[in-house]
Amino acid sequence: MSERPDQRLVRGTRARRTITRHAVDVASVEGLTGLSIGRLATDLGLSKSGVQALFGTKEALQLAAIDRAREEFVEAVVRPVLDVPPGVERLRALVESWIRYVETPLFPGGCFWVANIADFDSRPGPVRDALASDQEAWRAGLMAELRAAVDAGEIADLDTELAAFQIDAVLRAANTALRLGDTGAVAKVRRVLDGLLRH
Amino acid sequence: MSERPDQRLVRGTRARRTITRHAVDVASVEGLTGLSIGRLATDLGLSKSGVQALFGTKEALQLAAIDRAREEFVEAVVRPVLDVPPGVERLRALVESWIRYVETPLFPGGCFWVANIADFDSRPGPVRDALASDQEAWRAGLMAELRAAVDAGEIADLDTELAAFQIDAVLRAANTALRLGDTGAVAKVRRVLDGLLRH
Repeated sequence: MSERPDQRLVRGTRARRTITRHAVDVASVEGLTGLSIGRLATDLGLSKSGVQALFGTKEALQLAAIDRAREEFVEAVVRPVLDVPPGVERLRALVESWIRYVETPLFPGGCFWVANIADFDSRPGPVRDALASDQEAWRAGLMAELRAAVDAGEIADLDTELAAFQIDAVLRAANTALRLGDTGAVAKVRRVLDGLLRH
Repeated sequence: MSERPDQRLVRGTRARRTITRHAVDVASVEGLTGLSIGRLATDLGLSKSGVQALFGTKEALQLAAIDRAREEFVEAVVRPVLDVPPGVERLRALVESWIRYVETPLFPGGCFWVANIADFDSRPGPVRDALASDQEAWRAGLMAELRAAVDAGEIADLDTELAAFQIDAVLRAANTALRLGDTGAVAKVRRVLDGLLRH
């Protein structure tokens, strides 16, 4: 009996998710440049032609890994704080959620975007654009909470773009510090945040 | 007439410097992982065995590239400000010097350490140690100027370690922003510095 088309679809979707999950792990440690269809096939004991059929090109595989990393990031970092009231409370929850994301860590190499933007920031193309757009969306989220905090009179008026830039910068620095074994950086992030959230 | 030993030495040193300079350029764009003895030989039209004889292993080549990048960084960024009086003036000069270093840029991929620490922060070993130690030395330099500024009463007392962490973090974020075409980050760095250097 030949396999039904819907079963093939289910199997294809499952295989795709297994592969993208492994691709994210590899890319978080060795970078998206370390991804290749052959390498993933070997790692997962799949046929190279099967992986090739699912993704096509290396760039498509890299973009699929970014999509998958974003999906997991939203699920692990952003979604849990969406029911926290906007403003200072949600901003603090978001920052703590991000710290957990790199401390735990969700991906073995720490922040997926920090690991990869450094590689792609000088290489124009769809991969760089996808990484940059995610980072911009994250900063926009920080800005929205800062704006809500200012509007509600929770904190003194400030340049939300500048403050979001600073918060994002120290978070990324903390990710690198943690990878290098310097755990004191997390306390520094909290102190910078306290400094920005003064009334 | 066979070549005299001292001539061979001069040629070896010259070749080594040509190769490490190219290695730094490659590593600043594609990362130290993108370096290989074969690739550098091809790029520079040298024999692979000749490059092999000068460096031995890929790791030795990576460490030689870091040494060379550090040498050029000190020459371009640090040495020009050493005759500026310590404290606020030298700190500002150092930050402006760093901004020029990534704006110009000295290396085609921007900051050599930002480009490479992200790749190596999850891979223990001599390359990671060399990169981390350079970054620590840079932060220690920022701290020393902050301490001098506090001691001279130029600025209000502050946690110099925290302030150096913040300055370093926003500089690294500005490097990435510049690579992604966001030139506004430089003004943000200056505003963060102004905020930290209040009397």
